[in-house]
Amino acid sequence: MSETDRRHGGRPRSERADKAIIEATLDLLAEEPGLAGLSIEAVAARAGVGKTTIYRRWPSKDALILDALGAAKAPLPEPSGASVREDLAELARALTDERKRRYSRCFWNVAGGAERYPELYARYKRDIIEPRRDIVRRVLRRGVETGELRADLDVEVAMSMLLGSLLARRPQETIPEGHAEAVVDTLLRGIGTVAR
Amino acid sequence: MSETDRRHGGRPRSERADKAIIEATLDLLAEEPGLAGLSIEAVAARAGVGKTTIYRRWPSKDALILDALGAAKAPLPEPSGASVREDLAELARALTDERKRRYSRCFWNVAGGAERYPELYARYKRDIIEPRRDIVRRVLRRGVETGELRADLDVEVAMSMLLGSLLARRPQETIPEGHAEAVVDTLLRGIGTVAR
Repeated sequence: MSETDRRHGGRPRSERADKAIIEATLDLLAEEPGLAGLSIEAVAARAGVGKTTIYRRWPSKDALILDALGAAKAPLPEPSGASVREDLAELARALTDERKRRYSRCFWNVAGGAERYPELYARYKRDIIEPRRDIVRRVLRRGVETGELRADLDVEVAMSMLLGSLLARRPQETIPEGHAEAVVDTLLRGIGTVAR
Repeated sequence: MSETDRRHGGRPRSERADKAIIEATLDLLAEEPGLAGLSIEAVAARAGVGKTTIYRRWPSKDALILDALGAAKAPLPEPSGASVREDLAELARALTDERKRRYSRCFWNVAGGAERYPELYARYKRDIIEPRRDIVRRVLRRGVETGELRADLDVEVAMSMLLGSLLARRPQETIPEGHAEAVVDTLLRGIGTVAR
């Protein structure tokens, strides 16, 4: 809460409206038709504001949706850098925890609408997904540099295994306790016994 | 094509109708509203048959949907058993190839509707998904028995990494050439250099 908010014993009116609009957008995105069911009218009705209040702040529906999605994805923790194993485990735990959050269903619906809303999806991928993937990518690249990871590592393949094992589940599926660490350890040491 | 079909120069009428109904069901499942948009009326209209033709053959909408999904998932190849590496690579290639097929979008939509259609989704998982996962599971268990895989292998974690790396992509994303083999090799040998 900012200094101003504390002085006035609450958020300023426009900030409250913004928050209600963002939450209404996420609620609607999480419902069945996903992107197809979202209109500025529906957001306005759900948030209890007028359409002009929304248009004053967001120039388009896509801009509102991207802001809402950005607000729902907390930033990934900056890895501590102690070791590749610890860094990957921190990131994996953060990704697992996200699935417990209220809005994880939105992201499934947005991804499902990728073909039909290619421009929105491209911006979502560029502005929200790729910066997060980059954090994981940097940890893997650093591991190759320090010698903790194999010199011939295919970073994209390793990423697909780490992220896929955490993300390839339906929104309502729970991930078992300790899964994040188990995946990281399995990825590091491999499952085979024959040296390759 | 069976012997009978060849003799008569085509499929019998009821078989043609069945095929048209299954294809119409898959077409509708692949479209945006997915399960929510599917009705027997819509299937009948798309297939060019009467509703009674559908009800004569399938007792309920769920039964029709499950039959259609089963028809769209070709069985996974029975692994040759040459080695765990080769068996996993065969399965991984088959899963990758499936994504190029026309109906891969249906499965995304059905999974997305899991919360809203829990009974249908439970049957889909039990009758279509689990038998396929069991094939992968058996290969991994056999690998532990033969000593090709670590004795302390967590089979479910390994499965989530193998399948997640192949399946955690949007329906329209392409998987790079050689990805299936790269994932299997990375899983077998691990990415770390420190023995654990």
